[in-house]
Amino acid sequence: MTFSRFDKYVDRHAQSFVERLQTLCRMPSVAARGTGMRAIAETVEQMMQRVGIGTRSQRVGNGYPIIYGECGSGPQSYLLYGHYDVQPVGHLSEWSVGPFAATILDGKLYARGAANSKGDLVARLAAVEAYQKTFGKLPVSLRFFVEGEDGLGSPSLYRFANDHPEMFAAEGCIWDEGYKDTKERPVISLGFKGIQFVELRAHGARADLHSKWGAIVPNPAWRLVQALATIMSPKGVITIDGFSSQIAPISAEDAEALKMIEIDEAGLKHEFRIGGWVRSLKGAALVKEHIFGPTCTICGIQTGHTEAGMKTILPSLAVARLDFRLVPDLTPPLIVELLRAHLDERGFKDIEIIELASAPLAKSSAQSTVARAVIQSATEVYGSTPLVYPMDPASGPVGAVCGASSPPTPVASFGISHAGSNPHGPDENIRLDDFLQNIRMIGRVINKLAETKSKTSGAAQVSGSHAGISQSGKHS
Amino acid sequence: MTFSRFDKYVDRHAQSFVERLQTLCRMPSVAARGTGMRAIAETVEQMMQRVGIGTRSQRVGNGYPIIYGECGSGPQSYLLYGHYDVQPVGHLSEWSVGPFAATILDGKLYARGAANSKGDLVARLAAVEAYQKTFGKLPVSLRFFVEGEDGLGSPSLYRFANDHPEMFAAEGCIWDEGYKDTKERPVISLGFKGIQFVELRAHGARADLHSKWGAIVPNPAWRLVQALATIMSPKGVITIDGFSSQIAPISAEDAEALKMIEIDEAGLKHEFRIGGWVRSLKGAALVKEHIFGPTCTICGIQTGHTEAGMKTILPSLAVARLDFRLVPDLTPPLIVELLRAHLDERGFKDIEIIELASAPLAKSSAQSTVARAVIQSATEVYGSTPLVYPMDPASGPVGAVCGASSPPTPVASFGISHAGSNPHGPDENIRLDDFLQNIRMIGRVINKLAETKSKTSGAAQVSGSHAGISQSGKHS
Repeated sequence: MTFSRFDKYVDRHAQSFVERLQTLCRMPSVAARGTGMRAIAETVEQMMQRVGIGTRSQRVGNGYPIIYGECGSGPQSYLLYGHYDVQPVGHLSEWSVGPFAATILDGKLYARGAANSKGDLVARLAAVEAYQKTFGKLPVSLRFFVEGEDGLGSPSLYRFANDHPEMFAAEGCIWDEGYKDTKERPVISLGFKGIQFVELRAHGARADLHSKWGAIVPNPAWRLVQALATIMSPKGVITIDGFSSQIAPISAEDAEALKMIEIDEAGLKHEFRIGGWVRSLKGAALVKEHIFGPTCTICGIQTGHTEAGMKTILPSLAVARLDFRLVPDLTPPLIVELLRAHLDERGFKDIEIIELASAPLAKSSAQSTVARAVIQSATEVYGSTPLVYPMDPASGPVGAVCGASSPPTPVASFGISHAGSNPHGPDENIRLDDFLQNIRMIGRVINKLAETKSKTSGAAQVSGSHAGISQSGKHS
Repeated sequence: MTFSRFDKYVDRHAQSFVERLQTLCRMPSVAARGTGMRAIAETVEQMMQRVGIGTRSQRVGNGYPIIYGECGSGPQSYLLYGHYDVQPVGHLSEWSVGPFAATILDGKLYARGAANSKGDLVARLAAVEAYQKTFGKLPVSLRFFVEGEDGLGSPSLYRFANDHPEMFAAEGCIWDEGYKDTKERPVISLGFKGIQFVELRAHGARADLHSKWGAIVPNPAWRLVQALATIMSPKGVITIDGFSSQIAPISAEDAEALKMIEIDEAGLKHEFRIGGWVRSLKGAALVKEHIFGPTCTICGIQTGHTEAGMKTILPSLAVARLDFRLVPDLTPPLIVELLRAHLDERGFKDIEIIELASAPLAKSSAQSTVARAVIQSATEVYGSTPLVYPMDPASGPVGAVCGASSPPTPVASFGISHAGSNPHGPDENIRLDDFLQNIRMIGRVINKLAETKSKTSGAAQVSGSHAGISQSGKHS
């Protein structure tokens, strides 16, 4: 099957596809703020209908709509996950352009959500359009689930999947996380680390006090610092009691997969402007740590006063947010249990732990139909062998989508980002060439999903409380 | 000399005095924000003129005006320090009333700056008015220095004192810090701890990154936490190398003075809503630590994202602000030197130290004329023996005012606050009864300053780089 007509269609309609993406990027759909969510959900639904996808907008309680969409037909059906909400903007002063202006500069489109992941959503819809216009009906059945609570831990999606498992039974699932690395190699993932996102709180006096009381009034900021210092060594090793012994050894298959992966250390250090890696890791050890290392990241600390204007106070409250990225066999509930016991054992019973969000890890085989279709298509379109991560270092509500049926549905993830896309940070951006190239790749994926036969069962694993009704499922 | 006419004058004009205070409190003079500073300086100058004080507004460079004022005459002259700027408001949500509405509720006036220290300034001017109206001319020469940069470290005042030391030569100085404790005992101070206020900064990647990089990209928040954890033990002991050996033993005179001081532990614990004190101190040990213990207070930490809306990021920068309150023989430069060496020794050379503000400590004898006048007046008016602190746990630009001449000028400090005034924090307030009672006390102080003869030299001490031209002198 030749794709020259498909590719020409993409070229001819490139401007239109980019404009659709700009339309979405100009809608500031920060789930945490909650403004404009209904409007963007309607726009997404219209965009899906425009390319011939039959849609149904689903709401769970007061949640933001999940746009369900169906198109194509065939003996096999595949799920596509997407989300229309975006991360908070952060400090506006760190942005070079307005985060919702969708400015195009030097072939890049800058916007909060361009990379994560409105660009992927628009690319997938564009590919469906191009496929139908050039080849006619899709040869497989595609089922889209586009949610608006990625930034809230996907509570509606978890509940919806729990209530309607039959809608999630499929041969495979395509996720929306992926990028080209600093050497322009596409990164494809066959799973995601789990996540447990928690807040620690230390309490002091009823209000901030004049710091002249510092000699005798307990300071919750010191308390929090002392507690935090016990859970990570200065060298960067997680020192929570019983944590490391719960980490499963890497399987032979995963060890083989790791051998094929290389991190462009110099390029990435330059991109991030850092002098070196944690524990001076390099080479294979660095790759292994990135993909199979658990994390405990301080995502934020806030206490007292640090703004312009000196104010010497003794804070009344100190708050830290930590995210743990989980590898086999770490589960979200286990992390909270270990952390609580660890703090208690060291006399920090007063430190409160609040669970903000969680998601189990998900892993599937490189032999599944969806994995093979994605890997082969990337190889064809990008002209270089993709880096196939057995597990992506990021996380998402894969448990909701792929864990709804038993056995779990195999997943493969790819996307339009590049190494400098900076999702979650300021100046989030995508390169328009990547966006268009990705549309061409998706056309091939659709085709191969119908052609490829699974060699094995496509064994997949979703660990932890998958598909449970919970406030879990932080995609990030 | 009977004060019944004086006291009656205060009673009859109470309403007017409170209204003057409300006028000042309704001017939001946060030095760090810089709006309305010229207007309040003019208002202060007019209020001083209204009570017969000859004024001169002084500006140093682009600084906020220092209002200098003179009144009275006599063989002895005394300095009175005040400031018209206020601390930043902090989180508005923590205030029960508008911080600049000067709302009166249940006999309390709530406003940022009411306690620290617009109330003291208005009370002193009111006392000058009442004294002249009832007794005629003041029997001593009073010289006011009212600055607007207390919240900025008083750079103009330091420079002004350095350039005009002759204006600061005096028999004694009255400061504006003091309060009634939880048992309604007035607290008088004969000096202030020094202060060194610094910011520590740890740097990471060029921007906040998606936290999926947490396994391999160094996190400045962890770096800062690890560095901080080395300078304070979990038990609350400062562990900076060489720090404790620089602390002078408490003199016999100070040890005697400490015996006369009691902290109302139950009352203060209730006021602050805390379960206990640092290291479970109590009794004499608690008093000693409060007054002669050095501090290292985390006044604030900021890194990453902790606002509403979950965002899992790896921060690019982590910032902590620490204030050290200094006792003999600790000096501001010594603190920075010790801290730098301590961090370097432990491999934290990358942690930046930024000096924000500093002030030397000041201590003077209880036998000075000004100390005796203040202590005797408080005893008369309050009907209970005041608690006389040889050194206040707070700090201020005493070095600028009292260290400008040699030997240093003895200082005595008292004020209108109460134990629940919460200066620097939300719902700052004063009790109107305290305000009026304090005016009555000031009348007696003025009288005694002319009567009392110093028994000794009134030995005073200002240590460190006193009166140097510097960005030092944080009053807080």
